[in-house]
Amino acid sequence: MSKIFLLRILSFNNTDDKMRAFAEQVFASETKDETVRDEISMFDVAEDCPIIHHEMAHHLHTDDDEQKRKKRSLDTPTYLEVPDFQRVAVIGDYASGVTMDDFELACRGLYRALTIREKYMRLAFQRFPRTASQYLRQIEGESFRPEEQFEPVFTSPPKEGEDPFDVKNLPKNLGYVARMKDALITLKTYTHRRLKFLMSKFNVHEMLNEMEEMKEVKKNPHRDFYNCRKVDTHIHAAACMNQKHLLRFIKKSYRVDAERVVHNLKGKEVTMKELFQSLNLHPYDLTVDSLDVHAGRQTFQRFDKFNAKYNPVGASELRDLYLKTENHINGEYFATIIKEVANDLEEAKYQYAEPRLSIYGCNANEWNKLSNWFVRHRVYSPNLKWMIQVPRIYDIFRGRNFVPHFGKMLENIFLPVFQATIDPQSSPELSIFLKHVTGFDSVDDESKHSGHMFSTKTLGFLCQRSLFSLNIYSEGMNTFMFRPHCGEAGAITHLLAAFMTADNISHGLNLKKSPVLQYLYVLSQIPIAMSPLSNNSLFLEYAKNPLLEFHKKGLVVSLSTDDPMQFHYTKEPLMEEYAIAAQVFKLSTCDMCEIARNSVLQSALSDEEKRHFLGKDYLKEGPEGNDIRKTNVPQIRMAYRYETLCYELNLIKEGLKSE
Amino acid sequence: MSKIFLLRILSFNNTDDKMRAFAEQVFASETKDETVRDEISMFDVAEDCPIIHHEMAHHLHTDDDEQKRKKRSLDTPTYLEVPDFQRVAVIGDYASGVTMDDFELACRGLYRALTIREKYMRLAFQRFPRTASQYLRQIEGESFRPEEQFEPVFTSPPKEGEDPFDVKNLPKNLGYVARMKDALITLKTYTHRRLKFLMSKFNVHEMLNEMEEMKEVKKNPHRDFYNCRKVDTHIHAAACMNQKHLLRFIKKSYRVDAERVVHNLKGKEVTMKELFQSLNLHPYDLTVDSLDVHAGRQTFQRFDKFNAKYNPVGASELRDLYLKTENHINGEYFATIIKEVANDLEEAKYQYAEPRLSIYGCNANEWNKLSNWFVRHRVYSPNLKWMIQVPRIYDIFRGRNFVPHFGKMLENIFLPVFQATIDPQSSPELSIFLKHVTGFDSVDDESKHSGHMFSTKTLGFLCQRSLFSLNIYSEGMNTFMFRPHCGEAGAITHLLAAFMTADNISHGLNLKKSPVLQYLYVLSQIPIAMSPLSNNSLFLEYAKNPLLEFHKKGLVVSLSTDDPMQFHYTKEPLMEEYAIAAQVFKLSTCDMCEIARNSVLQSALSDEEKRHFLGKDYLKEGPEGNDIRKTNVPQIRMAYRYETLCYELNLIKEGLKSE
Repeated sequence: MSKIFLLRILSFNNTDDKMRAFAEQVFASETKDETVRDEISMFDVAEDCPIIHHEMAHHLHTDDDEQKRKKRSLDTPTYLEVPDFQRVAVIGDYASGVTMDDFELACRGLYRALTIREKYMRLAFQRFPRTASQYLRQIEGESFRPEEQFEPVFTSPPKEGEDPFDVKNLPKNLGYVARMKDALITLKTYTHRRLKFLMSKFNVHEMLNEMEEMKEVKKNPHRDFYNCRKVDTHIHAAACMNQKHLLRFIKKSYRVDAERVVHNLKGKEVTMKELFQSLNLHPYDLTVDSLDVHAGRQTFQRFDKFNAKYNPVGASELRDLYLKTENHINGEYFATIIKEVANDLEEAKYQYAEPRLSIYGCNANEWNKLSNWFVRHRVYSPNLKWMIQVPRIYDIFRGRNFVPHFGKMLENIFLPVFQATIDPQSSPELSIFLKHVTGFDSVDDESKHSGHMFSTKTLGFLCQRSLFSLNIYSEGMNTFMFRPHCGEAGAITHLLAAFMTADNISHGLNLKKSPVLQYLYVLSQIPIAMSPLSNNSLFLEYAKNPLLEFHKKGLVVSLSTDDPMQFHYTKEPLMEEYAIAAQVFKLSTCDMCEIARNSVLQSALSDEEKRHFLGKDYLKEGPEGNDIRKTNVPQIRMAYRYETLCYELNLIKEGLKSE
Repeated sequence: MSKIFLLRILSFNNTDDKMRAFAEQVFASETKDETVRDEISMFDVAEDCPIIHHEMAHHLHTDDDEQKRKKRSLDTPTYLEVPDFQRVAVIGDYASGVTMDDFELACRGLYRALTIREKYMRLAFQRFPRTASQYLRQIEGESFRPEEQFEPVFTSPPKEGEDPFDVKNLPKNLGYVARMKDALITLKTYTHRRLKFLMSKFNVHEMLNEMEEMKEVKKNPHRDFYNCRKVDTHIHAAACMNQKHLLRFIKKSYRVDAERVVHNLKGKEVTMKELFQSLNLHPYDLTVDSLDVHAGRQTFQRFDKFNAKYNPVGASELRDLYLKTENHINGEYFATIIKEVANDLEEAKYQYAEPRLSIYGCNANEWNKLSNWFVRHRVYSPNLKWMIQVPRIYDIFRGRNFVPHFGKMLENIFLPVFQATIDPQSSPELSIFLKHVTGFDSVDDESKHSGHMFSTKTLGFLCQRSLFSLNIYSEGMNTFMFRPHCGEAGAITHLLAAFMTADNISHGLNLKKSPVLQYLYVLSQIPIAMSPLSNNSLFLEYAKNPLLEFHKKGLVVSLSTDDPMQFHYTKEPLMEEYAIAAQVFKLSTCDMCEIARNSVLQSALSDEEKRHFLGKDYLKEGPEGNDIRKTNVPQIRMAYRYETLCYELNLIKEGLKSE
């Protein structure tokens, strides 16, 4: 297998310069207007602009353009067998609103952008949708080879009686030597404005077929929204419990452990009682209010204030004691809290979560400590799939001299993983831990560095580059997905970079600002874990959240909680997230089940679990890949999505025919 | 005691004609523009209307007006001892925006309206706030007599070992004879526009004191939003379980009782199995979707479709079997479901509910059957306080010849209660049941009859009149409160009628349309149980709900679920209601705890319970009546509310000084 990929790496290096030049050009145009918040992007036209309509009408009907239009006729789509529903067909001019020349130019751009993502995803062992690949091959006149489609491998849940912490089955030493190298990047995009059409099309579909979709769902026995699987695709381990849970845990720990030495206070070992005394606190008096970990009106647009909310009662000592893996008690409390959260999920049965743990890159020993914590406390649950989050705070580390240079930070982050991947037996705990780690996230306030230029040094690209190498070596182990926080705030270039590098992303709010990228995310079906309650406390009021709009346009959205400790009120944060979205956006059962299905697809649940939760053909595209008995998503909805996507991809094919 | 009240009834009758004339005049002006939805009321002025500002400025500064203004000076308010906070003082012109003549006229109107409510409330044994009474007495130059303030009596929870179904302690026969008489009504109102000022004042208060309020709350030990008491002040028993709970119950009942005879199908007794077979259903296949009791987009603005949602799987047979007190199994399942809901509340510990059961007035035996159901199944829980709802569907009953005339319907509704009240031993079950009944609600789609005229025959007035008589006889038993659905839709005259008759109301959305009534509801502190999630499915989108606006202006709002079966998703519907309001309206802990406190005050929890949940001085007005250790409402907020209310009442006093 490695040989094929080495060949690919070569061709990848060759196209680098061309791609970089193109990327920089696109970047320059995309960032031009970025300083203005929430404005209409340059590719968007106000809907009710009579002058533009007039001009366009004139422009569109030149004789030359008419000729070109007549020459074309769209392929008739073939419909799959699903229950009858009213299809929204567009008869006649299939590229209305733009001239034929612009149409062709746009299609060329979109085609190039999609091939770039396809190439990068394949190199980095991330996913690219089969339908898009098929259209790309048709455009190229090549035949589609299903064996080239990549599907990640995630550790299956242990079999009956199997110990998830067993080291016996770790693979043997591969004999490679690992070094960090300069990473590379490139990209390419274009633009178009099919999005409004997609929005209107969905609205019409919904009006016409809502009842038919509901009929399918009602006829579906056993399954409803409550018992279809949903994954919390974006949640930070350090805030995965709700505020009431943390409060209860603190009180309980004090009742049991008051006399236990739990902390090192300025060089002196102190008991829990002494620690609380030094803070002038008694846990008995603590309330959710004094705990003060919940986001409020004060945190809106203030990420700095939000970060302070991680400290219970404003005391970093308590954060250390209860929410850290490394402390005087070896992270015992934190492990216990997480296991309690996991237990609630196991009892709820249909809910899963993908918590993030931090690796900072400050020193080479972090991985050992983290995996030691994981194994020592046996922090395993079938309902949790782990991710590593890497904070984007090199500037702070460098400023405090924690790391000598950026390369060292990257080495701290990735080298131990390479070593454990190459020779698992050499670091058994890390290797065990890595079996449960499914991906990397990069996190922090994106708005902080909005000025920085697009460069080969961007953490994201380096992460992706490292993962790509890592995934080559890690045959037989987990594939690592790159799933960064992206588009929560800050420059839209983050979303451009993620388009090239990420299997899927969290947030994506700023896609609102770039129709180009938004459309590319539709075409390449990049999953987006959205957290409207989190946004509501930090960046964007709930009713203004683009979740509904994205969902209608065919972006693959899932719902996630981000930080239940800070945002949620009830005992079931993920259900709270769904319930509020359903209420505010008036989502139907069908919408909610589709979003739940998206969350399973986006997640790093193993193939075995996905077959069980979505149906054995879940990897197939369109209605064929859906088993309504498991997902409760009607085939009509699946057909609508699939046919709509094919129509959009087919347009690009048409636009490129004359070339 | 009865003597005093008989005197009052006489004077009440005397003022009748004058009041009726005035009420009709106000009604005529209030209804003028009613056909136009959501428009600005005639008393409201667009905020940014430069012409009006200009005209007003000119108008206000006539010499005569200036003279009048100079003559007056507002009493300096006396501040109670609460933590320091920044008060929003209005220095200078205290009645800006109106001429002195208009000001005085408005004050006279408001004074008259308030005295009418005060009188009617006292006659009907409903509540009227002490502060308002004090100002009214000052205006009249009379001294305030606290002994004239009425407080309702609700059955205390049984003592340790006491049986809530014990008939031994029922009062003796009073020896009266009960007859129905023509009911009476009257009313009076005026207008003013202090509401915008109240809104801005609250916003300023919040900006200045938010942190200080939070400081109080954080310093308050043990108590936070989770463990301060909250009452679901408006919930229908037949929809008090959530959809998932009902589904589970149906499945469970089938597993246990498939062979039990449970229904009479066209004259033939059938088992549960046969019943489901006749419906072509097997409970094993049932899902939340096929159950189809949840409101969705289809119910918005369609009350007719909503009512059908009470039938599980669209089958009225299942509604009969599971959600009715009267059926082949004597309402056993319904009783069991309610007891399960009660059990969840008892476990949650801090939540209470006031479910409504129906009395239709179709025949004289309804009360006996209902109380028999209540006693037979021992449907008692310390966390439930019962109410009777009377559907406003006389037109339907009359149309089907169920009742010969309206008087008969009223007799069916009230006569049994009178009889049981007068001679409890004669109908022990009903008397036991009435110990737990605390009030009457009148329900149905208000928009249906929006054309009907203001008349002495309105059900509301008749209800209130009956209750007023009833409460005279029922010394030593529960006081019955009149707490109608009102202002959910339809004519604003409903809100006018409620102002005269209701202790408190549910919904009140349409107060948005009448600043006159809205201001009167502020001044007389009429509690409003709001249900924004219910409104969101039926009448008004969530973000447009006036809850936040009302709360800011000083209306006494509580949160309630209305119909968890149809609107809610989670296991804790009331918490879901609070959580969503907190998220969408960005309520602070302080706001949420204030709303929770309002809900306890509005409720029919007994004096004993209220003392326990709110503090022993809960009947006192302002900060004195608040015990932050129990309510978690900061004294600063209490002082703000109290001083603001006093300021508004004082204005009226000032306006009437020249008279």
